Amino acid sequence: MILNMALSHDSYPIYIERGALKRAAEYFKLQRRVLIVTDSGVPAEYAASVAAAAKEPTVVTIQEGEASKCMKEYEKLLCVLTEKGFTRDDAVVAVGGGVVGDLSGFVAASYMRGIDFYNIPTTLLSQVDSSIGGKVAIDFEGYKNIVGAFYQPKAVIVDPDVLSTLPKRQVSNGMAEALKMSMTSDPELFRIFEQGEAFKKIDTVIERSLRIKKSVVEQDEKEKGLRKIFNFGHTVAHAIESEYGFLALYHGECVALGMLSMCSGELREKLLKILKSLDLPTEVPVDYEKLIEAMRHDKKMSGNEITVVYVPKIGQFDLKTMPFEELKKSMKEVFPQ
Amino acid sequence: MILNMALSHDSYPIYIERGALKRAAEYFKLQRRVLIVTDSGVPAEYAASVAAAAKEPTVVTIQEGEASKCMKEYEKLLCVLTEKGFTRDDAVVAVGGGVVGDLSGFVAASYMRGIDFYNIPTTLLSQVDSSIGGKVAIDFEGYKNIVGAFYQPKAVIVDPDVLSTLPKRQVSNGMAEALKMSMTSDPELFRIFEQGEAFKKIDTVIERSLRIKKSVVEQDEKEKGLRKIFNFGHTVAHAIESEYGFLALYHGECVALGMLSMCSGELREKLLKILKSLDLPTEVPVDYEKLIEAMRHDKKMSGNEITVVYVPKIGQFDLKTMPFEELKKSMKEVFPQ
Repeated sequence: MILNMALSHDSYPIYIERGALKRAAEYFKLQRRVLIVTDSGVPAEYAASVAAAAKEPTVVTIQEGEASKCMKEYEKLLCVLTEKGFTRDDAVVAVGGGVVGDLSGFVAASYMRGIDFYNIPTTLLSQVDSSIGGKVAIDFEGYKNIVGAFYQPKAVIVDPDVLSTLPKRQVSNGMAEALKMSMTSDPELFRIFEQGEAFKKIDTVIERSLRIKKSVVEQDEKEKGLRKIFNFGHTVAHAIESEYGFLALYHGECVALGMLSMCSGELREKLLKILKSLDLPTEVPVDYEKLIEAMRHDKKMSGNEITVVYVPKIGQFDLKTMPFEELKKSMKEVFPQ
Repeated sequence: MILNMALSHDSYPIYIERGALKRAAEYFKLQRRVLIVTDSGVPAEYAASVAAAAKEPTVVTIQEGEASKCMKEYEKLLCVLTEKGFTRDDAVVAVGGGVVGDLSGFVAASYMRGIDFYNIPTTLLSQVDSSIGGKVAIDFEGYKNIVGAFYQPKAVIVDPDVLSTLPKRQVSNGMAEALKMSMTSDPELFRIFEQGEAFKKIDTVIERSLRIKKSVVEQDEKEKGLRKIFNFGHTVAHAIESEYGFLALYHGECVALGMLSMCSGELREKLLKILKSLDLPTEVPVDYEKLIEAMRHDKKMSGNEITVVYVPKIGQFDLKTMPFEELKKSMKEVFPQ
């Protein structure tokens, strides 16, 4: 199946298809110099398969993990491009999860003011979320995604077959973001989660998530309004992440926890059941006061208020400006001191 | 006078007006955090005047010269933004020449995936050329402008009064780029140069140059076609620059030399006279063989050919694919061995 991301400039196809990785040469223009970026956690044969299809491939394998999304790796990849004589007509392909996609996407966005970028997400999290939409970035000075660009790929291959090598915890991690999207935007997808069929119907989960993402990005590419709904669960998630570092809990796990305090009581009961069925955490041995302190420094905090996404009912959402005290209260219900 | 750059996204005003620097608060939104970037060659009162009009100003003065357009300064400015807690709602203002504009423009383009950017060019070169059009970049690994973005400013102030403090050689430097634009696109502006009135009619030179630049950028923002005409004279200029470094000759001086070998013999005679009247060089003690070698490594060289802009007649141009041998020949006429 092909979804077409229709933006005012850069429209592009998203190929959702088992086995598509092996057909990269059909979907991407690879008869040129191609930098293929992957990481140490991705089976090497995935990048090798793309390299075999390219005219002049260069494969760079970065270290797995958020720490690679940094200025040093950014410069290293730019060096590779200059050393290999890449021109405006050449291309970058990401074969990996969000870290690989964000880092190499920013490299492609800024080398010679932008060369072609293709993405082959290999984690469920990046397949349902970060691989489309054009947000690319690196972390800097301890701030996540603080330096980057809006830069759309030329095409994306979402091949569910590559998930067969993904650790189970990573699959659950991706499910959290799909679940998040279903709660604000897709009751039918939510039903799949409620019925405990998400793992079995993973192709449907991916497709429906991508349809939501596509529709929202098409309406608000630069995140001026609607696109903020993807921040559902993320205010608390970021606080947990900045407290625990990015190592102890996966991003999706923090989002799972974050959603619990941002929905109605009735929904929370349903959500708890689903999280358990997905092997996602429902509590965290959190130092409540520290979490509150971390939220006080959130970029979205202005004065003594913060704008959060609240879900009163499946398929609905409010962009709600919450006084800090109310935020604390809603946290307290979920994370007792 | 206000010119409006009308692009599919980012339209913005260009205020061409003596004394406008002092009215920055009227033209720019400065009631927020504002990073003002300037360099050691620019009178400090220019940046101070903008700072006085801003709510929360931070002034950073970089070292004058091309060497500042580097990754190190880029990171330093990003650090200032994170340390001062700049958000998506804050802004960057460039007060300086092309180096300041290109560097701080790329900082604004990439911080939080893009915050507002304003430009107040203080050299003739940047007033007639680099301050509008949205090309921002830094140099990297010895390559000029190799890392950057297309990122349009929110508004530009072109105040000819600031040129009163500019060294005469710098004024001539800017005239070369204005002359370049007149040759491909504006016979009337060329006549001003022929009649030796460019210095006297500098406001007209600025306005007419900006009108050409605006019209071309509006038709071809991302340099897919027409915008390439601004490369007139630049193939040879870049070779001279890479041979001599960026210190011995100014960019406009290299462009002056570069145009000589890319126009008809009749035009060359007229051009020689104009260059002399503008105190621009008409010859360079060049090692001819080295220059040829540098051109062989030009990014625009493909196989044994290079695409250059050739001006057969004032107001006309050809995008000409030249075999390397022909390029050598046309060089030989101007730069005898």
